[in-house]
Amino acid sequence: VILLITGNGKGKTTAALGQGLRVYGGGGRVVCFQFIKSPKWPAGEEKAIEKLGAGFRLIKGGRGFVGIMGDKLPFSVHQKAALETLQKARRAILSGKYNLVILDEVNVALSLKLIKLKNVLALVKKTPPKTDLLLTGRYAPKALFRIADIATEMMERKHPYKKGIQGKRGREY
Amino acid sequence: VILLITGNGKGKTTAALGQGLRVYGGGGRVVCFQFIKSPKWPAGEEKAIEKLGAGFRLIKGGRGFVGIMGDKLPFSVHQKAALETLQKARRAILSGKYNLVILDEVNVALSLKLIKLKNVLALVKKTPPKTDLLLTGRYAPKALFRIADIATEMMERKHPYKKGIQGKRGREY
Repeated sequence: VILLITGNGKGKTTAALGQGLRVYGGGGRVVCFQFIKSPKWPAGEEKAIEKLGAGFRLIKGGRGFVGIMGDKLPFSVHQKAALETLQKARRAILSGKYNLVILDEVNVALSLKLIKLKNVLALVKKTPPKTDLLLTGRYAPKALFRIADIATEMMERKHPYKKGIQGKRGREY
Repeated sequence: VILLITGNGKGKTTAALGQGLRVYGGGGRVVCFQFIKSPKWPAGEEKAIEKLGAGFRLIKGGRGFVGIMGDKLPFSVHQKAALETLQKARRAILSGKYNLVILDEVNVALSLKLIKLKNVLALVKKTPPKTDLLLTGRYAPKALFRIADIATEMMERKHPYKKGIQGKRGREY
């Protein structure tokens, strides 16, 4: 089954990791490939997932924000990182070893043209029936909406930045 | 900060537990009170959360579906269970011991009139600043939208039942 979580609301990655928690807790094997977040990203869920052992793997394959928030890396560096993450995800999916594979913020990587839509679509089509694939990130292309079995759009109705409240670590999501 | 996750899309509880995972992983203390789910509910996340230890508690205070899916319990039994769960949640919130308190499906309990909106609003207003409160469930009343700092609506865009695919344990959410 192909799942898609998109929209401009906060919590898409968090929702995906929650789903991972559910599958893991049911005895399944889970791996999450992150296309934007880098190993330097400070995030509580990483520490929590590490406690869960080998049944739930988290691979931070990105190099951080692209072109914003002080990013000075050449575009080609981001592109190479995303391509390598897609290759790793491909091997994980085709191995058939996982009950759930999460491609976190793959939609963002697509919209930034770090990777090609045709390559992602080809991978979705090759996903074994016993493996669920969950794709996240805003700006999901229509082709992914069409191919998804379950699509959820998270809509921001209210956000603290608009009220002048700053996000804080451990809560920001 | 008061967070609200509502809408007709799947994954609201899962998203809330994912947020719990993030806060817990950042060193915070988390407790989730479930207003509909009962201890008999088979769910993978419970087993996963149990592995996390005392920092992340899950209290299944409900008695299951109300008036549907073969429920034969008197309404008063559901009402009593929801009231007790609200009282427990109240103690946890006012204790100031938790960084995140989740009131899972509290909106559903409100729409079924198991508990009173004024009691929930009073509790929201008394939440200490260092405790984040996350309320979930479809049918969120407007008063909760107004009081929330962050509100996310999960919109169902595509669902497998509509395509004739059956949910399976560990994935159904």
